Amino acid sequence: MRSHTFIDSLGTASIMAKILDGKALAKEIKDELKIQIENWTKHGHRAPSLSCIIVGDDPASHTYVRNKIQAAKDVGIDAKTLLYEETLSEVELIEKIKALNDDADIDGILIQLPLPESISERNVCNAVAPEKDVDGFHIINVGQLSLDMPTIVPATALAVIEMLKRFKVPTFGRNAVVVGRSKNVGMPIAMMLHSDMKHDSGLGMDATVTICHRYTPKEKLEYFCRNADIIISATGVAKLIKADMVKPGATVIDVGITRITDDNGKTKLVGDVDYDEVSKIAGAITPVPGGVGPMTVAMLMQNTFQAAQKLRDIDSQMQ
Amino acid sequence: MRSHTFIDSLGTASIMAKILDGKALAKEIKDELKIQIENWTKHGHRAPSLSCIIVGDDPASHTYVRNKIQAAKDVGIDAKTLLYEETLSEVELIEKIKALNDDADIDGILIQLPLPESISERNVCNAVAPEKDVDGFHIINVGQLSLDMPTIVPATALAVIEMLKRFKVPTFGRNAVVVGRSKNVGMPIAMMLHSDMKHDSGLGMDATVTICHRYTPKEKLEYFCRNADIIISATGVAKLIKADMVKPGATVIDVGITRITDDNGKTKLVGDVDYDEVSKIAGAITPVPGGVGPMTVAMLMQNTFQAAQKLRDIDSQMQ
Repeated sequence: MRSHTFIDSLGTASIMAKILDGKALAKEIKDELKIQIENWTKHGHRAPSLSCIIVGDDPASHTYVRNKIQAAKDVGIDAKTLLYEETLSEVELIEKIKALNDDADIDGILIQLPLPESISERNVCNAVAPEKDVDGFHIINVGQLSLDMPTIVPATALAVIEMLKRFKVPTFGRNAVVVGRSKNVGMPIAMMLHSDMKHDSGLGMDATVTICHRYTPKEKLEYFCRNADIIISATGVAKLIKADMVKPGATVIDVGITRITDDNGKTKLVGDVDYDEVSKIAGAITPVPGGVGPMTVAMLMQNTFQAAQKLRDIDSQMQ
Repeated sequence: MRSHTFIDSLGTASIMAKILDGKALAKEIKDELKIQIENWTKHGHRAPSLSCIIVGDDPASHTYVRNKIQAAKDVGIDAKTLLYEETLSEVELIEKIKALNDDADIDGILIQLPLPESISERNVCNAVAPEKDVDGFHIINVGQLSLDMPTIVPATALAVIEMLKRFKVPTFGRNAVVVGRSKNVGMPIAMMLHSDMKHDSGLGMDATVTICHRYTPKEKLEYFCRNADIIISATGVAKLIKADMVKPGATVIDVGITRITDDNGKTKLVGDVDYDEVSKIAGAITPVPGGVGPMTVAMLMQNTFQAAQKLRDIDSQMQ
């Protein structure tokens, strides 16, 4: 964590928020994973393997998958991309997933979303064998998460919890606000944040959690945020969280990512948080880019290695 | 809903809260169900059937199951109790559940909790076929609920949502506090309350939801409750919710039930809410007993009939 002194226009010095550097932390975690995976293969196991499916040619999907493949390579996971035409049917896609489910050489299966409109994402997510579902989107994995059982947790949600843990942000009995209720991000974050630390998942954070969303009136959102020790925003609404909504010293985790065009016609990525202003008020803040994003990729690698270990356990129990 | 004028010790008149009469509403729902089930059997279907398993001789469990059997009888559900000795093993219990899963004449299976300590409640809940799991405790049903998919919802949580709906309590964009984070009650209530009304389950309530629990500091609990339009308490802590914690006009739903002994040595049932005082402040309140309790039994009957209908659909699709 870095922090530095900020001199404002009146010449008064204030302490800038600590920057929760997700990029550096992700590197640290990937370095740890690399060593663990080296040990794993030294013990005679094959390298963990990940198959990423893309249907169609959405450029963002291709970029995301490329990043994941690179990260996999970095840590020693054997990853490949399976690319299918936009015209692939749901039935055909599910058949391909089933083949991967049955393939003992595959540990993790990831379906890059979004899928073409003709394909039900829910049906496809449920077609992945739950123990190979490194995105944690299968109904059984969601159910286990909701029951605080050990499971595979969606990587972005896990990234947020891991950052709170590694940066030692106190959560027990604290007020946390989760802005956004998506099923892959906001919902699982709220689930872990409010849950009992002593339960089996080990991911419970024992915070008092308020879930805000698109129908939370603006003044109510401000009210809850101002009283929060931790704000986690995952909406995709650029600069939704302003400085006057943040309690001095609060921790602000920005999951949002929006591409905007500035006055000079240049595009850049911004988060849900008005970073320049909020970082003068908050105690700690994640940047965008370089915050939750890289941590998500690291958590996906962690999920894949855990899937590999678990599948090996299941396999040896069956023999 | 009833409401009446209250004259306090200073002679000033105040409006007492509307009483959300769960007993009367449960009767209404059971009367509706009875007619629906009569129509169902008139169309040549056998009566819906429910099997309730009790292991051991916990007197409260026996009372609860007796009430459920009586309610089933009232609405035309064919219900039976399967009673097993405390010494029954987990393996034996799961075998018995599997036999019920395979029995086409059984629609709903209910395992009365708690089970003897030697038996894992989680393993047993997951042994019930999800489509016969009228308690909604199976991992798959929990996962579907968390994803706002149509599913079987735990009866107590469904009772609370149904009361909010039937008594037309506005929830959209309102502040709701759920006190208690149990996996069968508080968690699913929070899940439905914050979710999107437009999602497939039809149970989303679009409220801003704060989840409080045992580690929410007292002053924070008071703070969140005072700002809530709806308070739902499910802790089993008698008289936890005091009048000065309630915003005038708020709706208070009391899920708690605790047996206490008064100064004369008499026992009586009380809720989480200091009813006598809170009913002078709240806009609407559920009594204990006679509030959520009877509604829970009615919702279990509704779940059983829905299971019967769905199983018949599955059956006819397979033929």
